[in-house]
Amino acid sequence: MQRIPGKPLVIEEIEVEPPKAWEIRIKILCTSLCHSDVTFWKSSTDLPKLPLPVIFGHEAVGVVESVGEYVEEVKERDLVLPIFHRDCGECRDCKSSKSNTCSKFGRGYRPNMPRDGTSRFRELKGDVIHHFLNISSFTEYSVVDITHVVKITPHIPLGIACLLSCGVSTGVGAAWKVAGVEVGSTVAIFGLGAVGLAVAEGARLNRASKIIGVDINPEKFEIGKKFGITDFINPATCGDKTVSQVIKEMTDGGADYCFECIGLTSVMNDAFNSSREGWGKTVILGVEMHGSPISLNSIEILKGRSVCGTYFGGLKPRSDIATLAQKYLDKELNLGEFITHEVSFHDINKAFDLLLEGKSLRCIIWMDKLI
Amino acid sequence: MQRIPGKPLVIEEIEVEPPKAWEIRIKILCTSLCHSDVTFWKSSTDLPKLPLPVIFGHEAVGVVESVGEYVEEVKERDLVLPIFHRDCGECRDCKSSKSNTCSKFGRGYRPNMPRDGTSRFRELKGDVIHHFLNISSFTEYSVVDITHVVKITPHIPLGIACLLSCGVSTGVGAAWKVAGVEVGSTVAIFGLGAVGLAVAEGARLNRASKIIGVDINPEKFEIGKKFGITDFINPATCGDKTVSQVIKEMTDGGADYCFECIGLTSVMNDAFNSSREGWGKTVILGVEMHGSPISLNSIEILKGRSVCGTYFGGLKPRSDIATLAQKYLDKELNLGEFITHEVSFHDINKAFDLLLEGKSLRCIIWMDKLI
Repeated sequence: MQRIPGKPLVIEEIEVEPPKAWEIRIKILCTSLCHSDVTFWKSSTDLPKLPLPVIFGHEAVGVVESVGEYVEEVKERDLVLPIFHRDCGECRDCKSSKSNTCSKFGRGYRPNMPRDGTSRFRELKGDVIHHFLNISSFTEYSVVDITHVVKITPHIPLGIACLLSCGVSTGVGAAWKVAGVEVGSTVAIFGLGAVGLAVAEGARLNRASKIIGVDINPEKFEIGKKFGITDFINPATCGDKTVSQVIKEMTDGGADYCFECIGLTSVMNDAFNSSREGWGKTVILGVEMHGSPISLNSIEILKGRSVCGTYFGGLKPRSDIATLAQKYLDKELNLGEFITHEVSFHDINKAFDLLLEGKSLRCIIWMDKLI
Repeated sequence: MQRIPGKPLVIEEIEVEPPKAWEIRIKILCTSLCHSDVTFWKSSTDLPKLPLPVIFGHEAVGVVESVGEYVEEVKERDLVLPIFHRDCGECRDCKSSKSNTCSKFGRGYRPNMPRDGTSRFRELKGDVIHHFLNISSFTEYSVVDITHVVKITPHIPLGIACLLSCGVSTGVGAAWKVAGVEVGSTVAIFGLGAVGLAVAEGARLNRASKIIGVDINPEKFEIGKKFGITDFINPATCGDKTVSQVIKEMTDGGADYCFECIGLTSVMNDAFNSSREGWGKTVILGVEMHGSPISLNSIEILKGRSVCGTYFGGLKPRSDIATLAQKYLDKELNLGEFITHEVSFHDINKAFDLLLEGKSLRCIIWMDKLI
């Protein structure tokens, strides 16, 4: 848990309450570190709505340990992924094929359980510890609302399953469901972290003809090749040209699909300007933490361009996660390469260091296994 | 033609050269005044690339008088609409169902014919007069590139046909092809000029359940009812609430489709903020003449919203104009109500006055008929 803003996490013994109605208690098997954890961890001093102490973590796979009243979707010993993005299955949005948001429950950051606003975590002396993104997977046991859980096939390796609960699914989903990348189309991806590389993997799966990666770290090209990146642009070495100009030259006028995977409005603008007149589509995946607006040239958008945004890659957790898992099992989706490091739970701060140093894509953190 | 920036048009005898290759000469039967003519007329002092004298006008219907070499699509005496938005039928864009732009020919404002950059209009003393938007319909005869012409059924009244060559088609097309308004969906339209009302007509045709018009002129509600507007918001009388808040309350969270039909970036922002989380789509139709950027909240777009822009309502002139004409003949599309005034050609400046005073939607200007 994090007790002091910006300081390393501390491991302590805590009490995890039993699940209430529509909740399940999960024994976490492994969890991994997503950049959003780090963003909130770094900015916890700035965000007034992030009360401490808090248990971070939202990419994980676990086993259902116990279920609360009214829970019918899963039972004890089921293998499940907790998903920060909810899918109630009942509201107008969850029932619609056009949306992957849920409008039944309120939105916004919640430091506790979504239905009753209380926490299931307590210190041994009784004080409340807060939840994070409805999941809090950096703990041996967590309590999660049933709308934030999907079953996953036990045939899939645990580390791989873990990846599907956030970043990798987000990227693949953005290429597959949000953009609908087509055979032979051109793709430009801004930011080659795990999400950006997962976009490439999704574009490769859909047989894009050219997948351009844009990153200031030149090492990302070699890494990106494993996920289908065919061309690489380092903005620092473009000379007098803008990245958009270079992409337009490489793609005969602009990429069919551009993806922003960083969360910087200047890069969102670059992505938009790199998209093709006529039908170029820009997909925003990066979360701009300071709320700065995106600025788009109002004449350029009239030339048939579009911009859209999405959380969780436009995926509907209950149905789409199973599809991705099957694509992995069918050897269509390359997920193993995302796991660059593994640590034991007691070394969790090492996972933070590796991500901050740009060394890891995904570091799997094993709860019961010594690495 | 316009000789002096910002001054009324003058009628003079001119020479219209015969059509060159891939061109046709049209005898204009009637033309109407679109707001873009007025915008360029008003701003002709600001735009350095608009050389004078120029013949304005780009909504019209005419008869083919003569055809140049290689013209196979139309023949003498065919009834045709000149269309500012070209459709070459050969390039990757024109062949694609995803685009309605043409990438074969260069873009940007051209003061003359698109292929050879020269003019077909001359003063009797020999000086060049310039073309406007590839059409120049405020003349008895005009020469137009074949890629800017579509045939139209002679069964349709001339005034109605004229409307289909720009503004009304743009609005109907935006609802029909760009947004794809569905049965039961909610629509908000910002700016109830002819284009905005045509969006309403398209939304009504597609059986939207609620069509909200937003305009600072309260008289537009009564006018809008003829085109399917079900609810009206005057931004000046919203009290403490923003227009977006009012729309969100009226639509249970935001309109499914929002249309900006003015060309002001602040209104584009209002439209975006009025769109529904999950799948709300904002379509930009208004041309922001000063090049100001659109500013979008980067977090709000992540909630599943999208923004797109389009010229000519996403319509492909060669195929879609005929569809709209048929819908009129089948009494599905209500076009007659757009014609609020008619004048003779020698009274053309009256058409400008009526539009500037907000009194007319479309004023048909008859070349050979005394009104």
